[in-house]
Amino acid sequence: MPLPDKYKRFSEWYEKITEEAEIVDKRYPVKGMLVWKPYGYKALKLTMRILEDLLEEYGHYEAYFPMLVPEEVFAKEKDFLEGFSGETFVVERTISKKLARKFLLRPTSETVMYYMFNLWVTSYKDLPIKIYQTVNVFRYETEETRPILRVREIIRFNEAHTVHATLEDTERQIREAIEIYSKFFDALLIPYIILKTPPWDTFSGAEYNFDFFAIMPDKKAIELGSVINLGQKFAKAFDIKFQDKDGQWKYVYQTCYGVSERVLGVLLAVHGDNRGLIFPHNVAPIQIVIVPIPGEEVIDKILEKCRALEKRLKESGYRVKVDDREDLTPGRKYYWWEFLGVPLRLEIGEKEVEQNMVTIARRDLFRRVTVDDKDLERKIREIFDDISKELYDRAKKWLISNIITASTIDEAKNKLAENKGGIVRMPWCGKDNCGLKIEETMGVSSLGHNPWEKADGKCVICGSEAKYYFYVGKKY
Amino acid sequence: MPLPDKYKRFSEWYEKITEEAEIVDKRYPVKGMLVWKPYGYKALKLTMRILEDLLEEYGHYEAYFPMLVPEEVFAKEKDFLEGFSGETFVVERTISKKLARKFLLRPTSETVMYYMFNLWVTSYKDLPIKIYQTVNVFRYETEETRPILRVREIIRFNEAHTVHATLEDTERQIREAIEIYSKFFDALLIPYIILKTPPWDTFSGAEYNFDFFAIMPDKKAIELGSVINLGQKFAKAFDIKFQDKDGQWKYVYQTCYGVSERVLGVLLAVHGDNRGLIFPHNVAPIQIVIVPIPGEEVIDKILEKCRALEKRLKESGYRVKVDDREDLTPGRKYYWWEFLGVPLRLEIGEKEVEQNMVTIARRDLFRRVTVDDKDLERKIREIFDDISKELYDRAKKWLISNIITASTIDEAKNKLAENKGGIVRMPWCGKDNCGLKIEETMGVSSLGHNPWEKADGKCVICGSEAKYYFYVGKKY
Repeated sequence: MPLPDKYKRFSEWYEKITEEAEIVDKRYPVKGMLVWKPYGYKALKLTMRILEDLLEEYGHYEAYFPMLVPEEVFAKEKDFLEGFSGETFVVERTISKKLARKFLLRPTSETVMYYMFNLWVTSYKDLPIKIYQTVNVFRYETEETRPILRVREIIRFNEAHTVHATLEDTERQIREAIEIYSKFFDALLIPYIILKTPPWDTFSGAEYNFDFFAIMPDKKAIELGSVINLGQKFAKAFDIKFQDKDGQWKYVYQTCYGVSERVLGVLLAVHGDNRGLIFPHNVAPIQIVIVPIPGEEVIDKILEKCRALEKRLKESGYRVKVDDREDLTPGRKYYWWEFLGVPLRLEIGEKEVEQNMVTIARRDLFRRVTVDDKDLERKIREIFDDISKELYDRAKKWLISNIITASTIDEAKNKLAENKGGIVRMPWCGKDNCGLKIEETMGVSSLGHNPWEKADGKCVICGSEAKYYFYVGKKY
Repeated sequence: MPLPDKYKRFSEWYEKITEEAEIVDKRYPVKGMLVWKPYGYKALKLTMRILEDLLEEYGHYEAYFPMLVPEEVFAKEKDFLEGFSGETFVVERTISKKLARKFLLRPTSETVMYYMFNLWVTSYKDLPIKIYQTVNVFRYETEETRPILRVREIIRFNEAHTVHATLEDTERQIREAIEIYSKFFDALLIPYIILKTPPWDTFSGAEYNFDFFAIMPDKKAIELGSVINLGQKFAKAFDIKFQDKDGQWKYVYQTCYGVSERVLGVLLAVHGDNRGLIFPHNVAPIQIVIVPIPGEEVIDKILEKCRALEKRLKESGYRVKVDDREDLTPGRKYYWWEFLGVPLRLEIGEKEVEQNMVTIARRDLFRRVTVDDKDLERKIREIFDDISKELYDRAKKWLISNIITASTIDEAKNKLAENKGGIVRMPWCGKDNCGLKIEETMGVSSLGHNPWEKADGKCVICGSEAKYYFYVGKKY
């Protein structure tokens, strides 16, 4: 089970850990479709619940829209149809007979939902609508698939869709969505940058979109989530109109934003180390494992104390487990639960029983501390907070150290080579043409720019006054 | 919004209420596929959560298996393939290109899971396995579809699958599953009977199965859930073997059991009345609605009290809502929330403010009671319990009054005609042939027999000593 180095051989590290640490089973005989094991699935549900709670807090309602989309509904918005045609699965028969119509497996639910929004919206009083669902969606990825990060069945796609009467309200919604996602990724301790996608990479059918990016251990950027301003394109395609206070019929404005299980894949990659996974306590399927250390004579009392602690901590709301397997040494158990990323381990031996103490070992720093029984919950809360700080600081350092600033194309190329990857940002005049040229000259992907971050210096392409930084880098 | 009579015109009542009481929207342009509105979807999640908690309590783990099944995996068990071939959707292309393989949309996940169980099981130490998932499955129903009850996309199919070393352990599991489902339907206040399905109607690929049946307001039986003993058929088809303690390689035994959103459809039908839905408090999306009754001068104080109660009840863990819409009279609000089935309404007017009281109106009996502010939570708990008793009693009476016993075929026919439907049970010798003849002669569906219930008298077909009652009736 020893792991390859996370930074030097990330791809192998990731393949190995997602399979062996009980997250997924990759032996299902369809490329890009995974079996999720209970431990991994629990982490995924806990992760998504944080987002769902945030969405509810901000006034979104959960609903469910069908998975199969009639072809004629899917085809209403032309850019969208074109953007998704290569990767969308089609149903046109059952095993025994041909169907009269064609259906598509949703790659995302714009068309399904907006067909209904056309029926739901008639007056300004119906607005805004703020709906979300967490569902499986399908994309026939022709590029290399990668467990959890790039798959053909996305099993937990959380997609929010909103409808508004005015452009102003739509822009407020975009800011709200950015705020929700920022809180979500903060809760997962994943540092990110937010960039507005260049027009040539914008979501099919959108006016513009913002992407959240993290940086993986191989220094490639990865998209964590997207916040999309759809403007009135879909409103026009689906004829979604409302009668305003002034009596006029107007097209609505729309936004949508989505994240998927990919965020969990990024979380595993960002926080893990060469000994295994490290889960933040809020999404850890098991937060605390209790390991009995067999003593000379008091093994019954040791087990009794383990069970009493388990009961007590469960009642305090923790996800806790006693590892009482008799055929494994404590050392093997430590190793296993460290590999699985359980943030805290309680070790209970003779000393702990006799002195009414608990020894706590933390996963991130491998440090031990011994506390009085009565102080346990307080100390656990303290250490959890501390682990969160530690994990976030490590991740933040990695992000910062891999975002490079350069003031010429040559400097950007050199620095990127020197750093062996990462993201590089360069002063840019704001014109699409110059952005495209940066992408072409650098030979890596455009990531976009941050409109709230002003740049110093001259555009690296045209030499005129720079407005923003243009970010490029290899990405997933 | 007035409803047709639930018992006399059930079909219309059901169509109207599921659409107008914010459960589903049927205007999605594919037959048998529904849009779930937030209110209905919340009820469905709360319903399924009761079952999921029970499954976890009994040692089941939640996992996720892919939705698309390669044709060759689906085809391994021949009876299963034959049973599902008419209703299973096929994917063989994307919009722009033909795929090299065919995939099927899971109608249920036996084949997907058992392909993996073949890889997971090697030793007796790996057993038992107890796994479940709650997922969408697809069945191309060619019969008439009916909202929630008979659909083409089942959006929340909870399917549990277990693997065992011995026949005894398998039978223990069947009993456990029956216990879990009994607790689940009890929690939903839906009375049921449990019958062993006749061999000619047994689940494709199974040894035998038990079905839970409720009786709908139109006196037809409806299947709530199935508990299936798969024996070793799938084990042989998927070559799932383990090395036992004695060193021998043996085939495993398997069970599976499933329920879907249909149980919510049944719950709505069973508990509703001519004024609308009635939700048991444990699955009510909104448990308590607070309605301000505008007074002469104290409207601010009234609203203030409403908000204070809302806050207090939320903190006590209730799902509560203040209806502060200004353009509706209290009467209209009462009417609306009764229609939606909210079990309790708090009415707050001048009197309630001045006397530190709350008026509570219950949905089931339309009775009001006034309590001291300080006694509110205690009283709510009391009334919730009372409503549960009332709903269960009503439903139980309906069930019992529609299960008829007869000792000859003629008597059965007459009584069924007299009762205008329902289920009729007749003494039966236990032989398949006689069961089939009962079905044919009666001209309604076989439902099965309860092996724990011994019959008096002679078999209505062959006249030999009866063992059990054979149940028949119209069913969904």
